[in-house]
Amino acid sequence: MKIKTYIDKGYKPGRDDLITEYYLEPNRISTEKAADHIAAESSIGTWTDIGTLDQRIIKRLKPSIFDIDKNNRIIKIAYHHELFEPGNMPEILSSIAGNIFGMKSVRNLRLMDIHFPKRIIDSFKGPRYGIEGIRKLTKVSRRPLLGTIIKPKIGLDEKSHARVAYESWAGGLDVVKDDENLSSMSFNSFKKRMKETFRLRDKAEKETGEKKIYMPNITAETFEMLNRAKIVDDFGGEYVMVDIITTGWAGLQTIRDRVKKVLHAHRAMHGALTRNPRHGMSMLAIAKCARLAGTDQLHIGTASIGKMNETGEECMDIEKEIESKRVFEHQNFLAQNWFDIKPVLAVASGGLHPGSIPKLLKKMGNDIVMQFGGGCHGHPDGTRAGASAIRQAADAAMQGVSLKEQAKKSQELASALKKFGIA
Amino acid sequence: MKIKTYIDKGYKPGRDDLITEYYLEPNRISTEKAADHIAAESSIGTWTDIGTLDQRIIKRLKPSIFDIDKNNRIIKIAYHHELFEPGNMPEILSSIAGNIFGMKSVRNLRLMDIHFPKRIIDSFKGPRYGIEGIRKLTKVSRRPLLGTIIKPKIGLDEKSHARVAYESWAGGLDVVKDDENLSSMSFNSFKKRMKETFRLRDKAEKETGEKKIYMPNITAETFEMLNRAKIVDDFGGEYVMVDIITTGWAGLQTIRDRVKKVLHAHRAMHGALTRNPRHGMSMLAIAKCARLAGTDQLHIGTASIGKMNETGEECMDIEKEIESKRVFEHQNFLAQNWFDIKPVLAVASGGLHPGSIPKLLKKMGNDIVMQFGGGCHGHPDGTRAGASAIRQAADAAMQGVSLKEQAKKSQELASALKKFGIA
Repeated sequence: MKIKTYIDKGYKPGRDDLITEYYLEPNRISTEKAADHIAAESSIGTWTDIGTLDQRIIKRLKPSIFDIDKNNRIIKIAYHHELFEPGNMPEILSSIAGNIFGMKSVRNLRLMDIHFPKRIIDSFKGPRYGIEGIRKLTKVSRRPLLGTIIKPKIGLDEKSHARVAYESWAGGLDVVKDDENLSSMSFNSFKKRMKETFRLRDKAEKETGEKKIYMPNITAETFEMLNRAKIVDDFGGEYVMVDIITTGWAGLQTIRDRVKKVLHAHRAMHGALTRNPRHGMSMLAIAKCARLAGTDQLHIGTASIGKMNETGEECMDIEKEIESKRVFEHQNFLAQNWFDIKPVLAVASGGLHPGSIPKLLKKMGNDIVMQFGGGCHGHPDGTRAGASAIRQAADAAMQGVSLKEQAKKSQELASALKKFGIA
Repeated sequence: MKIKTYIDKGYKPGRDDLITEYYLEPNRISTEKAADHIAAESSIGTWTDIGTLDQRIIKRLKPSIFDIDKNNRIIKIAYHHELFEPGNMPEILSSIAGNIFGMKSVRNLRLMDIHFPKRIIDSFKGPRYGIEGIRKLTKVSRRPLLGTIIKPKIGLDEKSHARVAYESWAGGLDVVKDDENLSSMSFNSFKKRMKETFRLRDKAEKETGEKKIYMPNITAETFEMLNRAKIVDDFGGEYVMVDIITTGWAGLQTIRDRVKKVLHAHRAMHGALTRNPRHGMSMLAIAKCARLAGTDQLHIGTASIGKMNETGEECMDIEKEIESKRVFEHQNFLAQNWFDIKPVLAVASGGLHPGSIPKLLKKMGNDIVMQFGGGCHGHPDGTRAGASAIRQAADAAMQGVSLKEQAKKSQELASALKKFGIA
């Protein structure tokens, strides 16, 4: 049985349809033909007519390319929900973001957005804590969470690591995070690092009277991640960090299922997928998958303020998507009702310093974790002063006081601004 | 402490160094400066000087950019092995293929190749079976393994799926593989599919006197994959298939550790990473990681004969890399000694038909699995005839008989060539 075309511009997507939006540059064929190849390869078709495909299957499962924009570049496909296994993120991506990127029929192809229907939304767990749970746990009710990544990214032994963490908390930060290339090293073993760092976390909490958070990077083979989460639990930690792209979706779903901690998602390698605006997969699409799979916090960039490449708009659109209950169709964004899936707390990180805070706050709002690496430990007077400068800047910004004004009475902030400037 | 530069053209990589090769297009800065940012971000550095980085750490762990080609595009970096956690593929990739793709400093960046030192090679398990183990298990000692992917990719119920599988085996194929978007569906549950398909596998083995292989797609959340592997074991299956990019490296390593089956690796989504020659990650680099992590079989393309995009050369280079004991430095390829890691059997799949076989055999050699989807089930007389045509073509090619000659006495092959032609 041969399928002539998947294009059906009169098709109205049903409430149970999964919808994808692709940017498409065909390769020596028409957009329509390339779109047909994409719809086929991501569902029931192949490159030739086959005897095993019957009318019944076609009627039930054939997707519809229901929109091609006037520039012949943006296509939208509606898929019957039964083409996907509920709750299985790897399978869903193998279909709608799988073989199609490698076909001769396309020169460039980018998965820009995914609309998940309620049936699929309901099959995933989403964040265990979400923004509300995190606010409750950290007892920081209004302002952004302020954190640091221990620097150097890798190289400190366990005791030095814990000491830098302590200085950061003592200086006024809420959060300390491992960097993504620090897991369990010859000179800094996971278990010993937990022991030393949580010991000083307890000390910092006692001394400051504030809740202090450590986000240890448990990224590894799945059972090793579960072991490490158990160690975190033994020391009274509330968070785990997983590098979600290099770990992968199967492991991420496992951690969501089995680890009752706040799940902080780092996104190293995403740029290999997201950077080229004409190919790969948008960070928006990745972020939606991460929300469904259940990350509580997700790195989304710095709205073009830091060292990472992205437009401010892109970053704010992603924040809106992961923090809202419902997003309506606008520009090239598909509608999404998140139903019972909790909102994810956005994380800004990469090249930030105290001088970035007012602009960042204005662009990204209060519901955000601001993470500072070099912008904390690079303070002329060291980590504790760097942490204090960040807290001073954030408190000032929350009260609408300018950093210049605040720096008159906050020595640490004054030194930081002298080194880093104001964004 | 500030690091002035990571460039050290006099540096001679040591036997314990991990070496990466990147294609680099800097963004509004010099190649040297962008290379420095890459070396920093993938190891011990950040965007500013920091007080917590001391001379001892720099001396021990600072990587060296030891080569920049004359066009200022290809750079090579040597990393101290202690920057990586042995046996932790997600962590290694988070370092050398992580944040760097998203930095403002680069416009395009591609991880082209990775040289793994013995210390890291020894920390991974590699394939459990490898080519030799697969040859022994399948009792196919010399010729390529011949297989099909059940088509339509998705849509058949369990019984129809099993029937198509049976026809394929009965017609002469060794292998039947699930397609990547078929996992456990509302109309085709994993367990029932196993029951029906293995029942007919046993029947086909009895009738043909040949070993018949079924490769079920277990791709899902990690524990669900383990459940499914157990079901495969209960029915006497010897293989599992995992879609390695959408599953991710943590889950892949878990399956290698805990499932004593031949591990067939599909690679859906790889094109999002590999397609753009100036960005992302090469299939060669992915294939090396997959070999280390322990896939026994890996899809690498069809040497430009099928529907997927790649040059024949690229494909053959990857095959050489995953099937050899040792690869010497040549052109842009880094040297690699695989020590005790077994070779991986290459899989060619995507748009192949009986007429493709002689050319494919010539290009890719005997140590290969040839997989036919539409090229089998699209036969004018159906699946069994398609399977027979494939076997006839392969047997002829192995004996040096031309397909035209063979078609005179093989009716199924004649019909196939009439429909598909000769590649």
